[in-house]
Amino acid sequence: MSIRAEMLQVAREAKAASLILATLSSAVKNQLLERMADALEKNTEPLIAANELDLAAARKRDIAPAMLDRLMLDEGRIGGMAAGLREVALLSDPVGEVTGMWRRPNGIQVGRMRIPLGVIGIIYESRPNVTADAAALCLKSGNAVILRGGSEAFHSNSAIGEILRRELRALGLPEGALQVITTTDRNAVTELLKLEEEIDLIIPRGGESLIRFVSEHSRIPVIKHYKGVCHTFVDASADFEMAERICINAKVQRPGVCNAMETLLIHKDIAETFVPRIAEIMRGQGVELRGCPITREFAENVKEATEEDWGTEYLDLILAVKVVDDLSEAIAHIQRYASLHTEVIVTSDYGNAQRFIREINSSVVMVNASSRFSDGNQLGLGAEIGISTSKLHSFGPMGLEDLTTRKFVVFGDGQIRS
Amino acid sequence: MSIRAEMLQVAREAKAASLILATLSSAVKNQLLERMADALEKNTEPLIAANELDLAAARKRDIAPAMLDRLMLDEGRIGGMAAGLREVALLSDPVGEVTGMWRRPNGIQVGRMRIPLGVIGIIYESRPNVTADAAALCLKSGNAVILRGGSEAFHSNSAIGEILRRELRALGLPEGALQVITTTDRNAVTELLKLEEEIDLIIPRGGESLIRFVSEHSRIPVIKHYKGVCHTFVDASADFEMAERICINAKVQRPGVCNAMETLLIHKDIAETFVPRIAEIMRGQGVELRGCPITREFAENVKEATEEDWGTEYLDLILAVKVVDDLSEAIAHIQRYASLHTEVIVTSDYGNAQRFIREINSSVVMVNASSRFSDGNQLGLGAEIGISTSKLHSFGPMGLEDLTTRKFVVFGDGQIRS
Repeated sequence: MSIRAEMLQVAREAKAASLILATLSSAVKNQLLERMADALEKNTEPLIAANELDLAAARKRDIAPAMLDRLMLDEGRIGGMAAGLREVALLSDPVGEVTGMWRRPNGIQVGRMRIPLGVIGIIYESRPNVTADAAALCLKSGNAVILRGGSEAFHSNSAIGEILRRELRALGLPEGALQVITTTDRNAVTELLKLEEEIDLIIPRGGESLIRFVSEHSRIPVIKHYKGVCHTFVDASADFEMAERICINAKVQRPGVCNAMETLLIHKDIAETFVPRIAEIMRGQGVELRGCPITREFAENVKEATEEDWGTEYLDLILAVKVVDDLSEAIAHIQRYASLHTEVIVTSDYGNAQRFIREINSSVVMVNASSRFSDGNQLGLGAEIGISTSKLHSFGPMGLEDLTTRKFVVFGDGQIRS
Repeated sequence: MSIRAEMLQVAREAKAASLILATLSSAVKNQLLERMADALEKNTEPLIAANELDLAAARKRDIAPAMLDRLMLDEGRIGGMAAGLREVALLSDPVGEVTGMWRRPNGIQVGRMRIPLGVIGIIYESRPNVTADAAALCLKSGNAVILRGGSEAFHSNSAIGEILRRELRALGLPEGALQVITTTDRNAVTELLKLEEEIDLIIPRGGESLIRFVSEHSRIPVIKHYKGVCHTFVDASADFEMAERICINAKVQRPGVCNAMETLLIHKDIAETFVPRIAEIMRGQGVELRGCPITREFAENVKEATEEDWGTEYLDLILAVKVVDDLSEAIAHIQRYASLHTEVIVTSDYGNAQRFIREINSSVVMVNASSRFSDGNQLGLGAEIGISTSKLHSFGPMGLEDLTTRKFVVFGDGQIRS
């Protein structure tokens, strides 16, 4: 069979399964996820054995230690996957929710009801736990899922997929609901991305080059997240201790993630006092500073920031610092350089807080809190399937609800249009 | 300037303007729309003169009379455009609405606030009124809009655009907020469709070939609507008079539109009595019937339906008719052939109504009402920017709310992540 025919068959099986999944009760979906969690734990040994094959191949290719660590499965990580499945089972089911209903003058009752999207394709790299996590979120929201992991995790992903599919079979549910693409053909992804009749959404998870490749080749809608250049603006009225606490947390707690702060903006009225304080604290935490001329005037050992620094996602212990004239300049700077991920103002001024909330249209806008809260779990969505920095369908951290759409439901008693 | 550079400039001006539009109060936006309505009416004569240039060119090309009529502007139609602008001014503004807010265990308050999408591109054919209608909906929802009409309406669209832009100027608002692409270069559209950094959404309005072209060439998200193959299922328990009224209205009232019924499904238990009745009434209305073998057994002058008929959008006085064994077969038929537009059940059985609503996941699902209600005005959305038959972002008729997205807003008092 050609790779094109093979992918079409996968997608058609998923579409057929999606019709059945869409009608399942929450109780059945939860039972399925619980059984899947148990099955992963019962199969720890074969999973570790399959993972060992991937690790051995990776070692032969002299892969970086950090990548090897991401790839590795042990009892703890398998337990973590199982716990993730059980957490998703506990989340409330968005399917069937009616988000509004009204009556028209002619008496028809019109409402909007949440339904699954249908078939979701996830294209991801490295971490094998995505196989279980993404499958759980898609299935709980009534969607069929097609998973295509990286070749470096081939054996691990296949083994996880087979264990999970056994539980679909055991409950008499169609296996097309969860498919792991195991072909090594590199054209599998490009062929999948053409199947707009069968697949409703593609979510790429991985580096920027993967995401760009997927979004350029896909005829199917893609929810994408390129990068997070998160800003924190410390206003003239900020409580200094609060500002320091928030800035340190946002920069240092986990610098390698997309919701870490990359640029710090400081109001000029407090520059003389706040810049040296924050510079000293940041240096104490091992953070390299790159600043504008005023920053460099008030603090030592600050490199000169270039134009490129303002748009860079360092993902490292590096921070760009700029002193701005006022809130307007801070907003203009953010509008120019932000990646639409997360922006924070630290202020005690009511009007400035309101204006920042109103005028900054990044996907998450915060007053007096660390940008590190910008994720699905922290914001209260339950588990997270990804973060969208494009505005269509979803904007910001995405939970179960973002894997659904809404149909109109109309209840009449014989009305016709005149 | 190359066409690429020209389109990039248009898009960048739109993006800059969108930042200002996003912060406008509803009062200012409504004032703008009211002024635009007045300006169209005051400029009836120059508009008709510009339109006459398009009509003359069309007549030279021997265009079909129906197309000529769609292109034509007269005092009545210009008044209609002005009335449309005033109607949009009266609609409530979705921007700033907070659709939910909750408190997390650590005390941060998290909400979701509606914001404009940013820049919307509308690519359309023929009717010049789309220029004013689409502009009004985009501006009211705080978006900048780039309009690209068909070459056949070049002079009309340019004149409408110039009149509307004058009112932006008069209020001190950026003209980049409303731009009509007037170049005749055929590459303008393909260049626009590449500008994913500047444009947030493309809505094509026109025939299937235009929509396919746009969706295949766009790197920007596209909301598309290919066709409407709408079904009505008359259940065994249906009130015959209600069923007839609904079927006639759905087929005959305006057969050339996407929410007209194209396929009628009839429960086999009532086939012997209902098929001849509805066949006679349909014939009396000039409707050609194409039926399955059982339909042809119970009614005269019914052509044999082919496989192709079940998937066809006739947009004409033609109806495909099929007798089905039960609700399950009706649902399976709809799931196989529907275009996800609108499906109707006529029934007096509570359980069947509920099951139809639950299991049919087209964008509009109705009980005991005509499919002709499937439009934004009739369903209560106010004006309609289009109908989406793909599930991402919007599904079904789209109103002002569908031209917005939601950002997360977070109010803290110094929280950091532990």
